Parts: sequence; structure tokens; C-alpha cells
Amino acid sequence: MTKRPLILVTNDDGINAPGIRTLIAVMDTIGDVVVVAPDSPQSGMGHAITLDATLYVERLTKNGVKTNEYSCSGTPADCVKLGIKEVLDRRPDICVSGINHGSNSSINVIYSGTMSAALEAGIEGIPSIGFSLLDYSWNANFEASKKYVKLITENVLKHGLADGVVLNVNIPNVSEKEIKGIKVCRQAKANWEEKFDKRVSPQGRDYYWLSGKFVNLDHGEDTDEWALAHNYVAVVPVQFDLTAHHSIQNLNTWNLND
Amino acid sequence: MTKRPLILVTNDDGINAPGIRTLIAVMDTIGDVVVVAPDSPQSGMGHAITLDATLYVERLTKNGVKTNEYSCSGTPADCVKLGIKEVLDRRPDICVSGINHGSNSSINVIYSGTMSAALEAGIEGIPSIGFSLLDYSWNANFEASKKYVKLITENVLKHGLADGVVLNVNIPNVSEKEIKGIKVCRQAKANWEEKFDKRVSPQGRDYYWLSGKFVNLDHGEDTDEWALAHNYVAVVPVQFDLTAHHSIQNLNTWNLND
Repeated sequence: MTKRPLILVTNDDGINAPGIRTLIAVMDTIGDVVVVAPDSPQSGMGHAITLDATLYVERLTKNGVKTNEYSCSGTPADCVKLGIKEVLDRRPDICVSGINHGSNSSINVIYSGTMSAALEAGIEGIPSIGFSLLDYSWNANFEASKKYVKLITENVLKHGLADGVVLNVNIPNVSEKEIKGIKVCRQAKANWEEKFDKRVSPQGRDYYWLSGKFVNLDHGEDTDEWALAHNYVAVVPVQFDLTAHHSIQNLNTWNLND
Repeated sequence: MTKRPLILVTNDDGINAPGIRTLIAVMDTIGDVVVVAPDSPQSGMGHAITLDATLYVERLTKNGVKTNEYSCSGTPADCVKLGIKEVLDRRPDICVSGINHGSNSSINVIYSGTMSAALEAGIEGIPSIGFSLLDYSWNANFEASKKYVKLITENVLKHGLADGVVLNVNIPNVSEKEIKGIKVCRQAKANWEEKFDKRVSPQGRDYYWLSGKFVNLDHGEDTDEWALAHNYVAVVPVQFDLTAHHSIQNLNTWNLND
């Protein structure tokens, strides 16, 4: 019998979120699962790491028995670092992050704690996937996600991923019957039109809430936004080499050293 | 006379850091400067944004007179969003972030609050540069940086930057005489070999400090690490389209829809 893969599971909504509970249930059917996840929600944390504070890791028990789940006081990226270096006794075969409550498609990948955890594992050379469902609510229905989470994870375990590449998987918020399949996509060009809600505190001090409207500026049919709008699961290969290679030649014409 | 450019200045070390004071001094020689920067250090914040807390912005005064400097309770990315949408009355011509106390070369770009501020401005379509000096200390000497900060900023104002591209500028920690010039580079392949320093609190609870050793895995002579090691200022064009375009074709051979 082939050895079962060792799977590191994390997220950014916190270890008690329904999304990670679904992810753990699916991963239990594939391999040996160890969970290292934040002890509280960390959405919008981007690729934050904890440099100036101590980190706590607590092994959870269930009915007095130790589980393979660890809650961590740090960010999603901290969880992956701690998981790989301190919690696991061998390198995981794969790292999965999510299932996030809410989209991480297009420009959202930049702000995403879910994807930062996946990227952190990728930086460590571990095949890695971030999963997100397009429903921000705590009571999101992850039923239709299960099939696709399993299928994509099994494919990554089988084929591996190119060095420096991590998958960003977003799942439309529709029933399994309505999902048309999986599309490999590029990240759509989109941004948020921020709106700051300015208020005055009881002490008379101005403050703001950040809010905004997502605007897709990209009409391509090969993008994640297009796929999701047409009820496909969107898979975008993402990289952490941020070099805009196509710009290097142009910058070299600037004669910066004259 | 040509209209002076409007320059938005921010950073991640906080509005009182010597690095941003140097950056402001240089920008004052180029255009009209407005500063919106964190009220406290935010290093390692990556592209975090504040979704679940209120944001305060305070206009600073000097000798009882209002300045063009605003301190903000949020992250570097929050500062840029607030600066553009709430503080400035027109779009800035350029956004500059830094000068960071410490390197943001190679993989550090991913964890960098300095660069996340620059990227945030880039997402908003504003030409943008992050500057960093390879000295983590608060008392770092920014003297030699001034010439290069000015030269590169003036070039960006003159030439503009391609849509979706932001500059990551790292400056070696040597005297001006020792700096050999500027090199346009790609991001070196490198990572951190984390080491967690495990300790026990006075209450008997285990905790960790994150530390580690930077490891350059890239022997190319066209990288930022090579340039910095050879006393060049390293300029890397970076992008926020994270799509690994070279991987799409391969993923399409997986037959995920069979």
C-alpha cells in the first residue's frame, strides 16, 4: 500500500471556521492531516508575519484526547512557518489553505491571508493550494466545494506543481448541479473602488471604516472573474516572483547611470 | 513654469522614522509633498488592510501650524487608500514609500509593508516606488541614498511606468563613493531558513520567537541580490498580476473536467 500523503491544513478565518472544517473533512479522505491555523480570524492580513511579538501554539484536545490540530496566535504565514518547522516531524507532501469564506479572485489575491499561507508553503518548496468560496458569510454552504477541492488536491498530489507556482482556486457560490466544471485562468485586472465611511466617535474624534466596490476592468474570457461569473471553478497558477520581466528592457533605456 | 508634481509619501516604519524623514526631504526638492504614514512601525505587515477595525487619521501640527503630514492608525496599504481617497484633493502624480530601514530585496518583497504601500498605489494606477536601505537599525545612515532616491523618482516622473508595474529599489549600505551605480534587475530566488526560538513564559506556557537566516539560492548575475552584493542600487520592476502564465498550458493537460 502506498504511504498516505501528509497534508498541512491552514486558513485565515481561524481554526473554528466552517470553511476549514470542510477542508479538513475532505483531506481526511486523502491523507494524514495536521492542522495549524490561526486562533482567531485573520482576513485581510496579506502576507503579514509576526516579527515583534511572541507566538503561541496550542495543541487541541477532544474529549481529553490530543488531536492533530494546533491553534496559533500568529498570522496565516506564521502558521505555515511554524507548522513546517516546529509542529510536523517531516515535510508535508502538500499544504492546503481555506476554504476561505469569500472570494480571493483577481486582485484579492494580494490582500488574502488564505493565499499568503499557500504562497508561504510554496516558498518552502511545498506544493500548495488556496481554496475560496464566493460567499463571505460564516454560514456559507461548502457542500458543492467538496468534490472540486478533492479533485484538484488529488491532481496536485499526482502531477506536482512547477517550482515557484501555487494554485489559487475560487469556487462559485452555486449548487453542485450548476457548476459547469473547472477552468484554468489568469488573474483578472480588477480593483476596489474604496469608499471610506467617515464617522465621529462619542469623544468627538473622526474615524473611518474602509469599504468599497469591486470593479472588474477586464473583459477577457480567460480570466478568473469570467470563469466564476459563468459558474466555473477558477484555477489560477500564481507565483511569488513578482518581477515584471517585460519591463526590464524598457527601464534599461532610461540611462540611469549617465 | 511647469506645475510641481503632487507626491504622496508613506512608509511602514512609522511617520517618525529617520528613513521617511530623509524621503520627505528629498521629495521637497522635487514637488509638493503630502505624507500619510502609519503612526507606529508596521514592518512585516505584508499587504494587510484593516477590515475589522476603525481607522484614525490625524493631521500633524508643528509649532501650532498645520503641516501636510497625516499619521494614520492603519497599515501601509490603508495609508495609501486613505491618502488617495480622503486626504488628497487630487490624484497624486507619484507615490513613494520608505526609505525602509532594512532590505526588501528578493523574497522580502512579499513580506514588505513598504512595498505593499507602493503596490497599492500601483493598483490605483499611480506611478509608484518603494525605497529600502540595507540597514535595519533605527540610526541607519541615509546620506548616500538621497542622490539615488532623487534620480530614480525624477526618472519615473519623466518616463512614467507601464500599467501594473511598480519599482522596488534597494540601496546597499555603503558610502556614496562606494556605490557603483544603478542596475535594473530581476528578483533573486531566495528564502528564509526560519528558526523558531522556543521559550517558556513565567506562567509555564511555551512560546516562540520567529527568527531565521536569509539564504540566496540564485547564482544569476542579473538579480537584485547580485547587484546589492556588488554595491549597485538594485531596481526591480514588480507587478501585482501574480499569474504564472507559463504554467497555464501545463495545467490544461491535467484534464480536470474528465
